[in-house]
Amino acid sequence: MFSQTDFVHMERALALAKRGMYTTDPNPRVGCVLVRNGEVIGEGYTQPAGQDHAEIRALKDARSRGHDLRGATAYVTLEPCSHFGRTPPCANALIEAQIGRVIAAMEDPNPQVSGRGLAMLREAGIEVRCGLLANEARELNIGFVSRMTRGRPWVRMKVAASLDGRTGLPSGESQWITSAAARADGHAWRARASAILTGIGTVREDDPRMTVRAVDTPRQPHRVLIDSQLDVPLDAQILAGAPTLIFCGHLDARLEDRAGALRERGAEIVPLPNAAGKVDLPRMLSVLGERNVNELHVEAGYKLNGSLLREGCVDELLVYLAPSLLGTDSMSMFNLAAPDLLEDRVRLTFHTVERIGEDLRILARFAPTAAPGTDAVSPTVSK
Amino acid sequence: MFSQTDFVHMERALALAKRGMYTTDPNPRVGCVLVRNGEVIGEGYTQPAGQDHAEIRALKDARSRGHDLRGATAYVTLEPCSHFGRTPPCANALIEAQIGRVIAAMEDPNPQVSGRGLAMLREAGIEVRCGLLANEARELNIGFVSRMTRGRPWVRMKVAASLDGRTGLPSGESQWITSAAARADGHAWRARASAILTGIGTVREDDPRMTVRAVDTPRQPHRVLIDSQLDVPLDAQILAGAPTLIFCGHLDARLEDRAGALRERGAEIVPLPNAAGKVDLPRMLSVLGERNVNELHVEAGYKLNGSLLREGCVDELLVYLAPSLLGTDSMSMFNLAAPDLLEDRVRLTFHTVERIGEDLRILARFAPTAAPGTDAVSPTVSK
Repeated sequence: MFSQTDFVHMERALALAKRGMYTTDPNPRVGCVLVRNGEVIGEGYTQPAGQDHAEIRALKDARSRGHDLRGATAYVTLEPCSHFGRTPPCANALIEAQIGRVIAAMEDPNPQVSGRGLAMLREAGIEVRCGLLANEARELNIGFVSRMTRGRPWVRMKVAASLDGRTGLPSGESQWITSAAARADGHAWRARASAILTGIGTVREDDPRMTVRAVDTPRQPHRVLIDSQLDVPLDAQILAGAPTLIFCGHLDARLEDRAGALRERGAEIVPLPNAAGKVDLPRMLSVLGERNVNELHVEAGYKLNGSLLREGCVDELLVYLAPSLLGTDSMSMFNLAAPDLLEDRVRLTFHTVERIGEDLRILARFAPTAAPGTDAVSPTVSK
Repeated sequence: MFSQTDFVHMERALALAKRGMYTTDPNPRVGCVLVRNGEVIGEGYTQPAGQDHAEIRALKDARSRGHDLRGATAYVTLEPCSHFGRTPPCANALIEAQIGRVIAAMEDPNPQVSGRGLAMLREAGIEVRCGLLANEARELNIGFVSRMTRGRPWVRMKVAASLDGRTGLPSGESQWITSAAARADGHAWRARASAILTGIGTVREDDPRMTVRAVDTPRQPHRVLIDSQLDVPLDAQILAGAPTLIFCGHLDARLEDRAGALRERGAEIVPLPNAAGKVDLPRMLSVLGERNVNELHVEAGYKLNGSLLREGCVDELLVYLAPSLLGTDSMSMFNLAAPDLLEDRVRLTFHTVERIGEDLRILARFAPTAAPGTDAVSPTVSK
């Protein structure tokens, strides 16, 4: 059992963690609150990779304000790390500071290290409890949890459609179906992603930049392009600025010239053909996982959307639904065949539904569970 | 300006009015609260047609409890009637009871009598104010307001679809896309309607009863069928029980036998051909208005839905959206052609959005205004 006070402090720690939404990548977003004798004496959240983790920031904050740390309680939204990465382990720092109690929202999702940080703390005589607001903590790092538990990113597919499920006119005109408010909201989802993925069809039709513009962020997500035949024009906007990762099919002699020209534009070419010579999408997710992609934001067209769905490469749909009708012959969301029987239809759950300006934002998930790793941690939390 | 107390009593009157949701048809749903010296002394709501209106019920309630009515305030959700219909005018009854003050939510929407009841009360020396919670009152009687101001019903088209906007598989299988909770909710919307309309296509495919079953109601809505060629089978379930109104095209000699057989089954046949020999849908709405249909609930298929939309015969869409995908080749909501330009698309507003079980219920309206008659009453209400 956790107390009402515990909830208040952990909610504050979660709020702090959210401040790192656009910046901690590929590290998880973590928040920490230090409390002594009922008083909050230090706060912190994870800084950009290579800099301080949340616990270290909170300890520094408390010390800079002259507080005595001995016997304090640390509320952290993720189990403190136990290993030397780019920074020393946070568990050591908490032990050295003579913290008296640690309450963590969830264990580290990495099965290789899960529980070690908490064990280190316990061995040092610190009282440790875990599982407070675990679902909220997991949601915050849904991509990190996915990468650690499944070796692949959490894939979020964004679609903007009319109420009758259409994404553009037969002419191809699709800008804009949704309101400016919904488009700005979409940029906030781009900003939290490690990478944004699109396909050659969308590049040809819209020549998008696939950057974050409508919200303030110091970090641009990586850009990933699916382009089996390396058809992307050299002056495509998606190639401008930071290097773009291009997955293609067979990189045979015929394509070498194009590959060379694209590399000169700063692109990295990764051939990943499946049996049909197209890009092997599930393997692509593994490659992106190895490259530390936590959340993969997909903004693609009818064809690639359909392929990703059919090959089980999508975890949730981020659907902006506009209050309009585009008609039967307009473009559909996904190239997806109907099942033979209704009971075999693709099933989702509506995770969240919000009004964004005049539109609706529906987050729909394929699994009935809240997030990957849900079963890995089994806290009993009552409020 | 109305006081906080005024709001409380009018909200109670609106709650009472809602008790008549399934029963007052074709009369409006009205509630009345009588208050004297801060005490609620009588309450009432409109009884089935031919029986007491809300005001009379509230007066009887107060008298039966031995209360002195002189100088009391009456809160009514609609202007008291001033004419002899099937019952004597309520304005007279309030005057005779020596009520001191009347607060009405909205004027009578019938332009022929609007304001007369309030004028009668004022002439009798009663303090009268109007416009408190007018939008809520109008929503409650949106069909009655439509019939009085436009001479046609408020048309609500129900659609059950998957998140990708599909209403059934290519095979025709569509039972059930939405959950039992959503279907029960749909029956509550049927129950409040004066009439339920469907088309011959739906009768052929699903042979529906088009009755209210999932909610308790003493009144079944009338059933209306669009069937240009009188193709409805004599054993169709929609013909069973109460008489069904069938609109057809030209009732020529060829169809007379079928018409006779249908009349024997209790159906009423109304020929109403347009230039193409199909049913003239806008004229049909006028006929239904003349027949006292306030809210018309449409549950039809792809074709009729499209025709009603194209001919401007729909006021709002009642969309149940299920958390599933049915695929591109599945059935669309409406037979509706795409516009040439995005700026010419059919525009709606999302009026309400609710979760119903695992599904979403979206009420989307074609006009940006809340309801017909919105401009007819212009109260200044601040809360």
